[in-house]
Amino acid sequence: MVITDGQSVKNLTNSSFIFSHMKKLLFLLAALPFCVAAQSEEDAVFIRKLADEVLVNGKAHDLLRDLTKNIGHRLSGSPQYNKAAVWGKTEMEKMGADKAWLQECLVPNWKRGKDEVFIAEMDGRKQKRMLNALALGNSLGSGKPVVAKVLAVEDFNELEKRKDEVKGKIVYYNAGFDQRHVQTFRAYGEMGQYRRSGASRAAKYGAVGTLIRSLGGGTDNFAHTGSMAYNDSLPKIPAAALGLRDADFLWDMTRHTDVTVSLTTSGKFNPDTINHNVIAELRGSQFPDTYITIGGHLDSWDVGEGAHDDGAGIVQTMEILRAFKQLGYKPRYSIRFVLFANEENGLRGGQKYAEEAKAKGEKHLFALESDAGGFTPRGFGFTASPEQLAKIKAWLPLLKPYGIGDLEAGGGGADIGPLRSLGTVLAGLQPDSQRYFDVHHTHNDVFENVNKRELHLGALNMAALIYLVDKYGL
Amino acid sequence: MVITDGQSVKNLTNSSFIFSHMKKLLFLLAALPFCVAAQSEEDAVFIRKLADEVLVNGKAHDLLRDLTKNIGHRLSGSPQYNKAAVWGKTEMEKMGADKAWLQECLVPNWKRGKDEVFIAEMDGRKQKRMLNALALGNSLGSGKPVVAKVLAVEDFNELEKRKDEVKGKIVYYNAGFDQRHVQTFRAYGEMGQYRRSGASRAAKYGAVGTLIRSLGGGTDNFAHTGSMAYNDSLPKIPAAALGLRDADFLWDMTRHTDVTVSLTTSGKFNPDTINHNVIAELRGSQFPDTYITIGGHLDSWDVGEGAHDDGAGIVQTMEILRAFKQLGYKPRYSIRFVLFANEENGLRGGQKYAEEAKAKGEKHLFALESDAGGFTPRGFGFTASPEQLAKIKAWLPLLKPYGIGDLEAGGGGADIGPLRSLGTVLAGLQPDSQRYFDVHHTHNDVFENVNKRELHLGALNMAALIYLVDKYGL
Repeated sequence: MVITDGQSVKNLTNSSFIFSHMKKLLFLLAALPFCVAAQSEEDAVFIRKLADEVLVNGKAHDLLRDLTKNIGHRLSGSPQYNKAAVWGKTEMEKMGADKAWLQECLVPNWKRGKDEVFIAEMDGRKQKRMLNALALGNSLGSGKPVVAKVLAVEDFNELEKRKDEVKGKIVYYNAGFDQRHVQTFRAYGEMGQYRRSGASRAAKYGAVGTLIRSLGGGTDNFAHTGSMAYNDSLPKIPAAALGLRDADFLWDMTRHTDVTVSLTTSGKFNPDTINHNVIAELRGSQFPDTYITIGGHLDSWDVGEGAHDDGAGIVQTMEILRAFKQLGYKPRYSIRFVLFANEENGLRGGQKYAEEAKAKGEKHLFALESDAGGFTPRGFGFTASPEQLAKIKAWLPLLKPYGIGDLEAGGGGADIGPLRSLGTVLAGLQPDSQRYFDVHHTHNDVFENVNKRELHLGALNMAALIYLVDKYGL
Repeated sequence: MVITDGQSVKNLTNSSFIFSHMKKLLFLLAALPFCVAAQSEEDAVFIRKLADEVLVNGKAHDLLRDLTKNIGHRLSGSPQYNKAAVWGKTEMEKMGADKAWLQECLVPNWKRGKDEVFIAEMDGRKQKRMLNALALGNSLGSGKPVVAKVLAVEDFNELEKRKDEVKGKIVYYNAGFDQRHVQTFRAYGEMGQYRRSGASRAAKYGAVGTLIRSLGGGTDNFAHTGSMAYNDSLPKIPAAALGLRDADFLWDMTRHTDVTVSLTTSGKFNPDTINHNVIAELRGSQFPDTYITIGGHLDSWDVGEGAHDDGAGIVQTMEILRAFKQLGYKPRYSIRFVLFANEENGLRGGQKYAEEAKAKGEKHLFALESDAGGFTPRGFGFTASPEQLAKIKAWLPLLKPYGIGDLEAGGGGADIGPLRSLGTVLAGLQPDSQRYFDVHHTHNDVFENVNKRELHLGALNMAALIYLVDKYGL
């Protein structure tokens, strides 16, 4: 740690300085009980070339503008999704993929519908207020407006204690992000249960609708949609998420008076429909039948532009293909660049990809996903054996100059997750997480909120990691 | 490094896990030829308390809204600067400082004036275009419009080669940020010479005005002002910076045709005037006559709101005072919270502070500045002896859970720089640098571009570092 601090590897213009320090590092590591992969000046030089290519000539930001502004959001089953799939295949063919194709999969076909209205009325105050909310993905419409008194509870514990008061009410869960977590994904992970199962937990006691505090940590009032699921044995009541300021408002009002909410939603499922994973391939020179997969998901929610979630991962994936071709890089393994279908409300794209790999007996060495936003990169997380992780960790000095601070256990991605059953090592890009849940699943997840350099730094670090895996195996 | 990765110290809910790993770290470090400071579970616990206080109850973001929206930008010598100084003193008194006062200093009093117009005319095309530009700080007005053909050069080298063509022209320097640098401050450092001395370098050969490409790296067209200086022995010609898109436009046009620019600026200096550093103090319990200084600069340029530069550093400084008081922390050394005057165009505030310290024979142990934006924190840089740096580096495991990846040599701040001559150890907060030069010195440096959590994470890490210095000395 003392030897390999940022200072030592920062001054890339003085490569002899760097490598004298890297030698010290290797010496130190040799004394530790870990398997250390060979590293060479050649690696640092090639990664610097990759970095220069992406930072100076990178096209990820332009591609993202194209995807978000010319196509927009891309919910599974929507016409935009199909347009985006054709766009992705065409662009990757133009970049010089050895081949590119569409892989069919059947996806859920949920539609929000047009009518969403949320009105709060403070009893005895002749005061009405529109609430900024979004129906949750997969939730079913209210039919005519559901009008009922609100039972506002802190969390599931309070719901259970007050279960006798639930019948005929709209339950509001006030549970929100714990701001003490430095990693915002941890707060998201804790609160996910309210979005996922809050409706059925309340329906069990006779609730007629549910509202949650949006799963976000920002200071604005954008509502955050996202997947929910019903327990099929219980009534399927409408469910929506409130913007954070309106969540505060509703909670405060219920501390002082009875509140009646009128809730109109119109979600429904059409029959499952066909979408496609988009796959492009660079054929390996040495192990053509062993695969490395890089990907993100092409679908998004039906609000905003799906710019950070996950347009960023899509265009980073495409940029790696472009940069490899531009530099004339010939991989040893076959590399697949995959734009996955249906991450948001079904995961059918990722399942299909792994199923077909298994059916064909393909060997998948490594898979890397970017689905945590196009923010400044901070690390990669891995699902791997301790020996594999030790080998990977030894690469840190090569990535540190480009902003990677950690290579650690724990990570992957929803789309590549099913590959784990084939023994594939999984990895996920970990960008800085502070801003992600300001925009995630909102009308505010738009191109303008993605910074070009942060996006491109993510792409170049992904490219560098793929290069190292391709060169040294796992 | 392998032992102290992010994973090991991440799970703060399991403190025995952390500390078993910290012991391994200490064991490893003991084998290295560095002086390692003692660390204890007590430190981790107190820093967690600091973090919780700042992340949950922090007021830096609210203070920044107040400063930027109720006062606005705060150029040295402006009425807003004086208003901000009173505001800062009052707020820190309310927070419970043992004392707070204003320290007088004489500052330059440059005014932009009202008229700034930049028009490009493409010769022979009957085509005119307004250019988005800002006169550089300290530059003098053109009087009536300066109308002249443009000599567009890549850099000073080309200027020297073409010096015979300069007479009577407006020189445009196209030199811009080298996007290959991961740390954007490096690109800024390289290009600073064009803003600082581009006017006099061109005036030497008879130029009548200069334009530079703004010192920024973004994708927008905001012009970036900032300090320039004239060589007093040469004509003082007007100088301005173009927005990056208009810089591209002007450069491209000059590749195809002659371009005439009409340039009107109206900068002037009024006589020097009095501004004040704002100083609040918590008196030390053990070493009351030895000082630790935390600060940022209260002045800003006269565009935007000075939100990142350096409202962020100001409110982080104030937040540390608030959090220390809130937790009942009694420092061993006296801690000064300083809102410096006149960083942008004179550094008189920092000079005054050090001069008075010297005159009074004060001992200043340590000074920490935040003046690189309110973005997610990544590290601290230090100006210290190797022994002091080794001691500091041993604290990394305590800061890593809060986003600090590096404690490295090289750093400080413009305002605290003059303290170095008193033997003071200097440090600067190093936030992620990707977005800083999108907004720096522009109309776009506004409150809305500062993220609450990123700002507060910076404050809590600064507080934690101050706590460690206060506890263990240097």
